Amino acid sequence: MDPHPAPLRRLITLLTRLPGVGEKTAERLAQYVLSAPEAWVEELSRGLLEARRNVRLCTRCFGLSASELCPICSDPGRDAAILCVVEQPSDLAVLERSGAFRGLYHVLLGAISPLSGVGPENLRIAELIERVAAGGVREVVIATSTGVEGEATAAYLAGRLASFPVAVTRIASGVPVGGDLKYVDPVTLKKALEARRALG
Amino acid sequence: MDPHPAPLRRLITLLTRLPGVGEKTAERLAQYVLSAPEAWVEELSRGLLEARRNVRLCTRCFGLSASELCPICSDPGRDAAILCVVEQPSDLAVLERSGAFRGLYHVLLGAISPLSGVGPENLRIAELIERVAAGGVREVVIATSTGVEGEATAAYLAGRLASFPVAVTRIASGVPVGGDLKYVDPVTLKKALEARRALG
Repeated sequence: MDPHPAPLRRLITLLTRLPGVGEKTAERLAQYVLSAPEAWVEELSRGLLEARRNVRLCTRCFGLSASELCPICSDPGRDAAILCVVEQPSDLAVLERSGAFRGLYHVLLGAISPLSGVGPENLRIAELIERVAAGGVREVVIATSTGVEGEATAAYLAGRLASFPVAVTRIASGVPVGGDLKYVDPVTLKKALEARRALG
Repeated sequence: MDPHPAPLRRLITLLTRLPGVGEKTAERLAQYVLSAPEAWVEELSRGLLEARRNVRLCTRCFGLSASELCPICSDPGRDAAILCVVEQPSDLAVLERSGAFRGLYHVLLGAISPLSGVGPENLRIAELIERVAAGGVREVVIATSTGVEGEATAAYLAGRLASFPVAVTRIASGVPVGGDLKYVDPVTLKKALEARRALG
């Protein structure tokens, strides 16, 4: 017999749908919920619905937003002349956390991947071209991932942007800061050597 | 600037309270929720509240239940003459899943632990004695954990039950089935040797 009372069994089954959560983890999470403060469970229950219902895509950059324009796109303090192109909203979050970029973003919502049937027309590339064509953009930094699909997307974008009067740049590849050379793969090392800079 | 829109930030903060969920895992779970089917998010939201509000302790065995008596205590097909004593409802679930036990349970809701200030009076021991004193019980199987606190609790219970006409037994310790001897600790091996049985 299933030893869990019905409401607990239902919760466990629902939780196993979360990424990386198997039956055992779901049981542990559900057990925690049973003994957690009711106020927190109520907040979590509401928080799930509100995030799902109120978070949408910014109509300009396609990052996540709770309103039509995201806080970054509507911030007059950001440099609108420089656009950073990323694959996913999560990439935008990672870059933003570094604090190293003060321009605006453009999220493609994917990368070109012929094997998965994703072509340029499935990404927000037309919208990027439109933003650049509208003028006021001086530089487009392509920060797609450094795997095959990200590189292919970067090359495609460079071609599409070549006819516009904008600088098209690519984030640097190299040895991670704090990384030990012996754990760095040969391709990354090759790139790090090619992009070497004079010291002092 | 926090790159997450407010409803997403709130959800991430709420999720980090779950056991074993740090900031990165919470972000991954929240991102999943944003793109998951709304019907599932609604079900999960409701499931959390219903589990928290409707699951309580069985008034007889102190296992988890959605009603006053749990399904096991109210099942006339179970052998009421044999009680298995465990520390937590999760232990009951594990035993039940093995399918090896057809009696009833008694959950102590902890183990005796002087260091944590848990004495016999903080556990459901008086209720266990009452059940045994009421008669009809032939055997009490003590299935507390095999660590120091579980063993201390087992010894204490054996003392308290000595004056009743019931057999008091302890689950066997030994080498896990499928376990390789070289990974078994010396204390477990010693117990396995002491409890050896004639073959054939």
